[in-house]
Amino acid sequence: MTASRPLHFVTLLGSLRQGSFNAAIARALPALAPAGVSISALGSVGEFPHYDADLQADGFPAPVQAMAERIRAADGVIIVTPEYNYSVPGALKNAIDWLSRLTPQPFAGKAVAIQSASPGLLGGARAQYHLRQSLVFLDAHVLNKPEVMVGQAAAKIGGDTPELSDATTRGFIATQLEALAALARKLAG
Amino acid sequence: MTASRPLHFVTLLGSLRQGSFNAAIARALPALAPAGVSISALGSVGEFPHYDADLQADGFPAPVQAMAERIRAADGVIIVTPEYNYSVPGALKNAIDWLSRLTPQPFAGKAVAIQSASPGLLGGARAQYHLRQSLVFLDAHVLNKPEVMVGQAAAKIGGDTPELSDATTRGFIATQLEALAALARKLAG
Amino acid sequence: MTASRPLHFVTLLGSLRQGSFNAAIARALPALAPAGVSISALGSVGEFPHYDADLQADGFPAPVQAMAERIRAADGVIIVTPEYNYSVPGALKNAIDWLSRLTPQPFAGKAVAIQSASPGLLGGARAQYHLRQSLVFLDAHVLNKPEVMVGQAAAKIGGDTPELSDATTRGFIATQLEALAALARKLAG
Amino acid sequence: MTASRPLHFVTLLGSLRQGSFNAAIARALPALAPAGVSISALGSVGEFPHYDADLQADGFPAPVQAMAERIRAADGVIIVTPEYNYSVPGALKNAIDWLSRLTPQPFAGKAVAIQSASPGLLGGARAQYHLRQSLVFLDAHVLNKPEVMVGQAAAKIGGDTPELSDATTRGFIATQLEALAALARKLAG
Repeated sequence: MTASRPLHFVTLLGSLRQGSFNAAIARALPALAPAGVSISALGSVGEFPHYDADLQADGFPAPVQAMAERIRAADGVIIVTPEYNYSVPGALKNAIDWLSRLTPQPFAGKAVAIQSASPGLLGGARAQYHLRQSLVFLDAHVLNKPEVMVGQAAAKIGGDTPELSDATTRGFIATQLEALAALARKLAG
Repeated sequence: MTASRPLHFVTLLGSLRQGSFNAAIARALPALAPAGVSISALGSVGEFPHYDADLQADGFPAPVQAMAERIRAADGVIIVTPEYNYSVPGALKNAIDWLSRLTPQPFAGKAVAIQSASPGLLGGARAQYHLRQSLVFLDAHVLNKPEVMVGQAAAKIGGDTPELSDATTRGFIATQLEALAALARKLAG
Repeated sequence: MTASRPLHFVTLLGSLRQGSFNAAIARALPALAPAGVSISALGSVGEFPHYDADLQADGFPAPVQAMAERIRAADGVIIVTPEYNYSVPGALKNAIDWLSRLTPQPFAGKAVAIQSASPGLLGGARAQYHLRQSLVFLDAHVLNKPEVMVGQAAAKIGGDTPELSDATTRGFIATQLEALAALARKLAG
Repeated sequence: MTASRPLHFVTLLGSLRQGSFNAAIARALPALAPAGVSISALGSVGEFPHYDADLQADGFPAPVQAMAERIRAADGVIIVTPEYNYSVPGALKNAIDWLSRLTPQPFAGKAVAIQSASPGLLGGARAQYHLRQSLVFLDAHVLNKPEVMVGQAAAKIGGDTPELSDATTRGFIATQLEALAALARKLAG
């Protein structure tokens, strides 16, 4: 066991809009991390072209390669995403489609946690289970519990630069980050 | 019943690469349509930007509006798509994410059939069930049977400009198109 | 159109316990039905043995045959069910497994609506999407909207013989029953 | 690491019929296990009553308690199951519904592998992903790869007492059992 080794997690954000609830959650994560865990944001999935095997034949785009490097170097990935049309946003799925083609595949064996927020009651649950199915193929180790599904997000996230103010949600997320750290340490052997 | 009214279907393609198995299937559809049914291809999902609510606030991109118009005018939609990472390709999902924001929402009440092809044994099955879940939200009427999942596609689709040559698969698809026509006519009342 | 023809729906309940929230919802349905629609309860899924093809070879059990007859005679089916372990209760799935083996298969072409209630926030959503996947195979026409997922059921259903008292939920369900009637009439042609 | 510690896995079978393809696979497992791994069969899910919280209030049935004890004592669980109606057989799901209510919950933290066989091409794939969703709630560690989906089972399993004769499938399964052993050892720390 290497419980004392510092860990670094990276966040992968599924939304592109400035005022995104999910972006606000992603920004809150560094302050909610347990001792010994640092968290930083990956680049935007909006910088990737649409996946096209013909494009890939010309070489992987630089933002794809850069994101893959950072995921490989991280001890864990936190995917923070809205739900669109009862599933994963296309732009996020597209990023996964690119990343999955690289060797070594960056998600393989990696500890992953999922968080989602939505204005409705379900908090993005449907997107999470679809994402979990993709992560089976990617051979990631996805944290089971606690699940973080932030429903009625407008009541919990507010301000000009939106901030996650809801204390219960912050506590929930802190617990998940601790669980992810424990999983990452277990996987490291 | 209006069994004799001609119907028009449009195809929505989930792959961008030139030599795509799924593109070959989409190209085969007009010749496999029953009497009284014409089929034409929608524009490429590769022309849509990544969905971003801030972009939407500036107005829907022209290719999104054009595709929506053609879907609204059609009697049915045939989605032909590969499976990426056990789910729907990001670029196709992104197109759906844009289209879903328009009013009137183009898929509402529309007859839809799904076809998928893959090199493996499952023929894209996993992508189809995820797509069906999105289409619940979109309030489409998705054909149940027959399902068209073309596994081991390399043995069924070949040539420099790939063509669907496998007679069994062609027959299967023709049966699905008949079923879609019957569904579209039932929905038209 | 046969808008004035009376319709009859049957309810299929996924829970066996006496004080079930979902049983309370099923009991409330007849009073919430639109004019011209009557609703009655099917027998209990608890009366079916576990599905076993060897048993089937000896003949379908009487309760299976009786339930199938009543579904075939109905204009629509309303499945009311809890969620167990993020999916459909085994006893309800088992009933479907038996019914699906009969010819004519009772769900084929039938209008179906799904309702679920749970103590948690998601209201049984996860069970609903799994059930929808089974109903693709069964070739049912499952209503898309409105979805009825009754979360925090303990606050909406109470009393010694539990009763659905929450007015908002009652209104929601009444709207779904109207939509199911419209779907059943459309399917009848 | 405790690579040399012997491991014991138990098999949970989703089919009740005597001639089951999946039963044949479950019987083949002990001979396919890697050195240091023994495998034995759990009792039949057919011995469990339908889950009913009122029954549970009177005490958990003896077969439920016995199966839970054996799962808790095992280093891993192999679920071998057919697909019914595009999902998990009701009888298997019902067993999970009972087991999930016990404390300590027997699947929590357990290494789990899934195998399925079907006469069709998909080999039970749809049941596997539904099962995976339930296993998220149960907090099991489900092996990602290799997936064992045995399609066209009638060509691979035969004889009066059906036997898994197909060498490719046997090799595939042996590889999965090795991967499950590695996962179980990693989880043991």
